Amino acid sequence: MIDLYTASTPNGWKASVTLEELGLPYEVKAIDMQSGEQKQDWFLKINPNGRIPAIVDREEGDFAVFESGAIMLYLAEKTGKLLPADAKGRSQVIQWLMFQMGGIGPMMGQANVFNRYWPEKIQPVIDRYQNESRRLFEVLERRLGESEWLAGDAYTIADIANWCWVRTHAWSGASVEGLDHLQRWIDKIAERPAAQKGIKVPVDIDAIRQGNGKEAEEFAKRARTMVQR
Amino acid sequence: MIDLYTASTPNGWKASVTLEELGLPYEVKAIDMQSGEQKQDWFLKINPNGRIPAIVDREEGDFAVFESGAIMLYLAEKTGKLLPADAKGRSQVIQWLMFQMGGIGPMMGQANVFNRYWPEKIQPVIDRYQNESRRLFEVLERRLGESEWLAGDAYTIADIANWCWVRTHAWSGASVEGLDHLQRWIDKIAERPAAQKGIKVPVDIDAIRQGNGKEAEEFAKRARTMVQR
Repeated sequence: MIDLYTASTPNGWKASVTLEELGLPYEVKAIDMQSGEQKQDWFLKINPNGRIPAIVDREEGDFAVFESGAIMLYLAEKTGKLLPADAKGRSQVIQWLMFQMGGIGPMMGQANVFNRYWPEKIQPVIDRYQNESRRLFEVLERRLGESEWLAGDAYTIADIANWCWVRTHAWSGASVEGLDHLQRWIDKIAERPAAQKGIKVPVDIDAIRQGNGKEAEEFAKRARTMVQR
Repeated sequence: MIDLYTASTPNGWKASVTLEELGLPYEVKAIDMQSGEQKQDWFLKINPNGRIPAIVDREEGDFAVFESGAIMLYLAEKTGKLLPADAKGRSQVIQWLMFQMGGIGPMMGQANVFNRYWPEKIQPVIDRYQNESRRLFEVLERRLGESEWLAGDAYTIADIANWCWVRTHAWSGASVEGLDHLQRWIDKIAERPAAQKGIKVPVDIDAIRQGNGKEAEEFAKRARTMVQR
């Protein structure tokens, strides 16, 4: 059994969608970021960086793994799935995973911060991150015009990692208009039962955002406290 | 033989220091970022993201690898060095490598953009990235207070990746004051011959920056065109 410490963010979904896709049993431990639970001593022993997600593999002597990209590689290697075994195939997956870790994630993350949470609107800074996100989407578009999946013929953790972020493009204010291959890929992954289940962990944030009630307000208030990277 | 397409930046050094440390023969191909060489068609075939570094492994049918973190993992796996073979040891290296890819790199990179290259000084934005860089340095400090190297007892690609960025903290305007374990670690890596050689690839930027002549001016001018992530 794996303990998953998480919250409803793209980085959190990277872990939960991967766990769902691999069919691994896991126990969700929702982290209350509003109260700063991720900065408490007990959690820093699991993730010294005080962020979600993190996992603890109870079958492996409570081995803790932090950083969403490292969690995905650990789980893929543990099961021998969603990652090819040969050196070149592995590397192609890792290249597109790193593209998400160092590009898509940080740039969309900064777009979110300045587009959604920052106390004042600083348009040149918002533009910078939205434009850079769009540029990265166009890199994905070209790739998906020549390859069914990011790392080749098979669906891998590289697709999951990028999809968990790119699907939230509207929240970042970065458009995918005219990027037909990217849109096809977004839709195809959205049909996968594991993806549908994974993005509802720990709560179904899409349903909450689409709702109009008290819960949506509460969530929006909470989201504003999540200003991070 | 490996072709290394690079420029004198922390991400470039991640590749060159790793190649030096592994003792692999490589040929340096300096990319002229001022003229936008990294966006030319021939280079996009090597790195679809149009960034440095990238490598082409001529021994492996001209296999191309982009994203600095993916290059490091590829080279470590190719040689069986700077990365433990057991699953837990490997994962610890990958966790701290991902910490650099998704944290140290993007946050120091943004600090550089707004501290050095942005046309206007937007102090709250500069503060955000310098503070976040400092917070990440403190995570490294705690880790290095309990462990000689980031991933345990052995020097690995995780140390190289973080060091190539953290050593430039003054350029980002993020202080390491009072972080004694981190300073000890920075100094210890700086003594390694491979690190000393690697950070002079393709040009010895530290010597240029410390100089007062025409070359330094030229370089500074060139650096301003490197506004990226």
